[in-house]
Amino acid sequence: MGKGDETRQAILDEATRVASRVGLQGLTIGALAAQTRLSKSGLFAHFHSKESLQVQVLEHAAAMFVDGVLRPALAAPRGEPRVRELFERWLAWCGATWPGGDLFVAAAAELDDEPGPVRERLVRAQRDWLETIANVFRTGITEGQFRADADPEQFAHDLYGVVLAYHHARRLLRDPAAERRARLALDRLLDDARPPRH
Amino acid sequence: MGKGDETRQAILDEATRVASRVGLQGLTIGALAAQTRLSKSGLFAHFHSKESLQVQVLEHAAAMFVDGVLRPALAAPRGEPRVRELFERWLAWCGATWPGGDLFVAAAAELDDEPGPVRERLVRAQRDWLETIANVFRTGITEGQFRADADPEQFAHDLYGVVLAYHHARRLLRDPAAERRARLALDRLLDDARPPRH
Repeated sequence: MGKGDETRQAILDEATRVASRVGLQGLTIGALAAQTRLSKSGLFAHFHSKESLQVQVLEHAAAMFVDGVLRPALAAPRGEPRVRELFERWLAWCGATWPGGDLFVAAAAELDDEPGPVRERLVRAQRDWLETIANVFRTGITEGQFRADADPEQFAHDLYGVVLAYHHARRLLRDPAAERRARLALDRLLDDARPPRH
Repeated sequence: MGKGDETRQAILDEATRVASRVGLQGLTIGALAAQTRLSKSGLFAHFHSKESLQVQVLEHAAAMFVDGVLRPALAAPRGEPRVRELFERWLAWCGATWPGGDLFVAAAAELDDEPGPVRERLVRAQRDWLETIANVFRTGITEGQFRADADPEQFAHDLYGVVLAYHHARRLLRDPAAERRARLALDRLLDDARPPRH
């Protein structure tokens, strides 16, 4: 990584933190300049426009998510252990990584009515993630841990709901049972996926 | 209802629609004046401050929710039919009532880090709603349709997740299967709640 790249990565780290607090749409080059004490003209040289900055922040956050959640989960054994590792890493990501809550959750609420490249990039990240969850679940079907007729896309959709409910209970309601409830919900999803006992 | 009340209700209708599009925090007295062509000073006379306007919009939306979702659901027979009526009305509320998506979902993402009376009002509305869902579920236990040891609070938490996942799939991902997936998720929650067959 060259010096220019390092600087860019450091700025994106900070920009991602800022976006988690003020929202992706609040992340302007001016706001970032105020936070980083870098000049607006220097930031413009790196990012060219507010939209391009926002897209790059989403890509940066997606790369962090791969490093912190997906890659370690893929190191776990196939099937249920991998699903559980993915889930625990995802909860930790929502809970601890972000001062202002999961960037993707906040961005989804912000951008659902805002057509343009930032929304498109977010939608792509979310579809990729749902597909990844479905694929991880599928390893449990191949291993015979889950029913052959279980629906991996439905599982991915449902697991997303479990994490959104966790985020809501933890961050908005400050519900001390949020983690316990999320794990119970996962247990139930997995129980429903198991083959009937003989 | 006096004329002043009627005017206030009409303004709150419009303010609630505006907040659904621009977010609750984007709903300033100035923004509302621009949308309604009422004078800022007239609006100040009604609402006194931006915060008070936002709190009243939340209360207005909560009252609309009671009229459109809760009250008709309570007219359905106790137990599963009532849970299903509540759920269908809630999906319709998320899907159709709001030009910019469910106000409460958007506000939750916006306000989770914003201490103050608006956040407090939102938290109270969300807790009330979770408690109501749990109570409606409980009628199914009393009727013997759901297991005596089923957990109504967990059901309420899980159902919230189903609706959040629906909102995400429908509004952000424009997933044509969003409704079908939401109904499948509810069916699974209800199946898990039924007493074991003898």
